[in-house]
Amino acid sequence: MGKLQEEFNSYRSRMNERVMETANTNIKRFFALDTTSYAAGALDVKTKEMLGLVASMVLRCDDCIKYHLQKCHEEGVSTDEMNEIFMIANLVGGSIVIPHYRRALEFWEELTQPAS
Amino acid sequence: MGKLQEEFNSYRSRMNERVMETANTNIKRFFALDTTSYAAGALDVKTKEMLGLVASMVLRCDDCIKYHLQKCHEEGVSTDEMNEIFMIANLVGGSIVIPHYRRALEFWEELTQPAS
Amino acid sequence: MGKLQEEFNSYRSRMNERVMETANTNIKRFFALDTTSYAAGALDVKTKEMLGLVASMVLRCDDCIKYHLQKCHEEGVSTDEMNEIFMIANLVGGSIVIPHYRRALEFWEELTQPAS
Amino acid sequence: MGKLQEEFNSYRSRMNERVMETANTNIKRFFALDTTSYAAGALDVKTKEMLGLVASMVLRCDDCIKYHLQKCHEEGVSTDEMNEIFMIANLVGGSIVIPHYRRALEFWEELTQPAS
Amino acid sequence: MGKLQEEFNSYRSRMNERVMETANTNIKRFFALDTTSYAAGALDVKTKEMLGLVASMVLRCDDCIKYHLQKCHEEGVSTDEMNEIFMIANLVGGSIVIPHYRRALEFWEELTQPAS
Amino acid sequence: MGKLQEEFNSYRSRMNERVMETANTNIKRFFALDTTSYAAGALDVKTKEMLGLVASMVLRCDDCIKYHLQKCHEEGVSTDEMNEIFMIANLVGGSIVIPHYRRALEFWEELTQPAS
Repeated sequence: MGKLQEEFNSYRSRMNERVMETANTNIKRFFALDTTSYAAGALDVKTKEMLGLVASMVLRCDDCIKYHLQKCHEEGVSTDEMNEIFMIANLVGGSIVIPHYRRALEFWEELTQPAS
Repeated sequence: MGKLQEEFNSYRSRMNERVMETANTNIKRFFALDTTSYAAGALDVKTKEMLGLVASMVLRCDDCIKYHLQKCHEEGVSTDEMNEIFMIANLVGGSIVIPHYRRALEFWEELTQPAS
Repeated sequence: MGKLQEEFNSYRSRMNERVMETANTNIKRFFALDTTSYAAGALDVKTKEMLGLVASMVLRCDDCIKYHLQKCHEEGVSTDEMNEIFMIANLVGGSIVIPHYRRALEFWEELTQPAS
Repeated sequence: MGKLQEEFNSYRSRMNERVMETANTNIKRFFALDTTSYAAGALDVKTKEMLGLVASMVLRCDDCIKYHLQKCHEEGVSTDEMNEIFMIANLVGGSIVIPHYRRALEFWEELTQPAS
Repeated sequence: MGKLQEEFNSYRSRMNERVMETANTNIKRFFALDTTSYAAGALDVKTKEMLGLVASMVLRCDDCIKYHLQKCHEEGVSTDEMNEIFMIANLVGGSIVIPHYRRALEFWEELTQPAS
Repeated sequence: MGKLQEEFNSYRSRMNERVMETANTNIKRFFALDTTSYAAGALDVKTKEMLGLVASMVLRCDDCIKYHLQKCHEEGVSTDEMNEIFMIANLVGGSIVIPHYRRALEFWEELTQPAS
C-alpha cells in the first residue's frame, strides 16, 4: 500500500473505531446506512462508487474522494473511465474543483502504479 | 410532454437561444464542453447522465436535476435504479437534499407515467 | 393556518406520501432517521429544532427553513430568541443568507400573528 | 422599470422594512455593514459591485444576483464586461451556475433594453 | 492544553493579531459582530455556541468547528449532548460531513480527557 | 520566493504536469478555458483576478485563493484594495470565511514583505 493510502486509511480506521465506541444509536444507524447504500442492488457496486466519487468531488471533500477512489479501483474502474469522471466533476463543480482533482490524480496514480 | 417538463424546457430553450446570441467565445466554448463531456466514451451516456444527476442533486440545483432526469429517462434508467441514485444523493448531501428529492420525484413520475 | 404555511405543508405532505409509496428501504430508513434525530434526548426538542433551523439557514434551503420555523414555533421559541438565531445564521453564512432571512421572517410573521 | 425588476424590488423593499421594524441591534449592524462595504474606497463602486456579483453567482443566490446586476447597471458596466463576469462565474462555479446565468441574462436584458 | 488545541489556538491568535494590525474598519466591525453575536441574550451562551457549532459542521469548516468545540466545552456541553449535535450535523449535511466529524471527535476527546 | 509560495507552486506545477500527461481532451480544454478566461478583454487582468479571488474566497478553496493572491500581487493590487476584497468575501461568505481569510492574509504578507 502506498504512502498516501496508508496515511488516509490509518487515521480513518483509528477514528472510525472511536466513533463506534462513543457514538449514539442514531449515528451508528447513519454509518450503517452509509455502508448499505453502496451495496449491489438495481445498480452495481462499481456504478454506485462512481456516483459516490463524483458527489464527493463536486462537494470538494478530499477524504471522501480518497475513499471512493480506493473503492473505484477495487471495482475495476479504468484510468480512461476515471478521467471522464474527473471531467464531469470539474465541469459541474467548476474550476474550484481543480485543486481537489490534482490531489485525486496523485492518489489515483499511487493506486494504479505497477508494484515495483 | 407533461406540464413540468414543458415549463422547464420552454424557458431553458428560450434562454439558451439568448445565450447563443449574446455570449462571448469563452462562454460558447464552456457550453460546448458541457455537451461533449456527456457523450459516450470510456463510460456510456447512461452512466454519465447518472453522474450528472447525482452531482446536481448534492449541489441542489433543481433545473440541473430536471435536465439530467430527462436524459436518464431517455437512456433507460429504471425507477429502481433511480431510487438508488436518489438514496446516494440524500445520503451524501444530507437531509438538506430532501426538498429537491421531492421535486425530483414529482418530475420523475411525470416522465414515467403511462400515456393516458 | 396562514397561506404560506398551507402552501408549504400541502405540497410537502403530498410528496412525502409519494415518497412512502415509491422509495426503497434505505430511503425510508433515512427518513426515519430524520425524524428520530430531532426527538428529545440529552438535548430537548426545542434546542434540536433551533439547531436544525440554523443548519438549514446557512445551507440556504427555504423548505427546510420553513419546516424548522414551524417546529420552533410549536416548541415555544420566542421572537427575541428567533432574532438571535437569524443573526447567527446571517453572520456565519454571510449576506448570501439575507434573501432567505427575508423569506424566513415573512413565514415567521405569519406563524406568530395573532388570530384575527 | 421592467417586470422582473419591479417584482424583485417590491418584495425586497417590503421585507427590508419588516427587518428594520423587527430585527435586533446586531442584525441592523450587519445590514449597515452590508451597505458600507460596497461604498467607494480604495476600490471604486463599480469594481465592488462586480465582486459582489461574481460572489453571488458562484454561491448561486438569484436574489443577490439580481441586486448586484442592478447596481452594476447603474455603475455603467457594459454588456461585454458583463459577459466576462458571467464567464468567470460559470468557470469557477461550474455548469451548476448555468441556470442562474440564464436567469441573470434575462434580468440583464430587461435592465439594458432600450426604452420603447 | 492538548496538542491539537495548542496548534489551533497558537496559529489563530497569531493571525488574529495580524488581522487587528492590518484590517480596515469594516473588517474590524465584522470581527466585533462575530464576538457580540454569541454573547448571552434571549438565548444563553451555551445554546448559541451549539448553534455556531452545527452551522460550522454543515458548512464543513474544521477551524470553525474546533473553535466552537472549545466554547461548547467551556459552556459545559456534555458528551451525550455533543453526540446529538454531531448526529444533526451528519444528518442535515450528509455523509460528506463524516470526515469533519472524525476530526471533531478527536478534538473533543482531547478537550474532555481527564488530566493525567 | 517565500516558503508558502514555494510549497504551493511546487506541488501545483508538479501535478499540473501530471494532468497534462494523463488528462483527456475535454479536461485539457477545460484547463485552457481556465487560462483564457482571465486574459485581458473588456475587463483588464487585474479586475478579473480580483473576481477570481473573491469567488475563491466565498467558495473557500485555499489553493485557489493562493493562486489568485499571487496573480493580484503581480497585477499591482495594493494592500488597501486587498483589504476591501477581503471584506466583501467575509461579508458575502460569512464568518465561515474567516479561517481562509487568516491564511490568505499570511500568504499576502509573504507576497508583499520587503526583500531582506
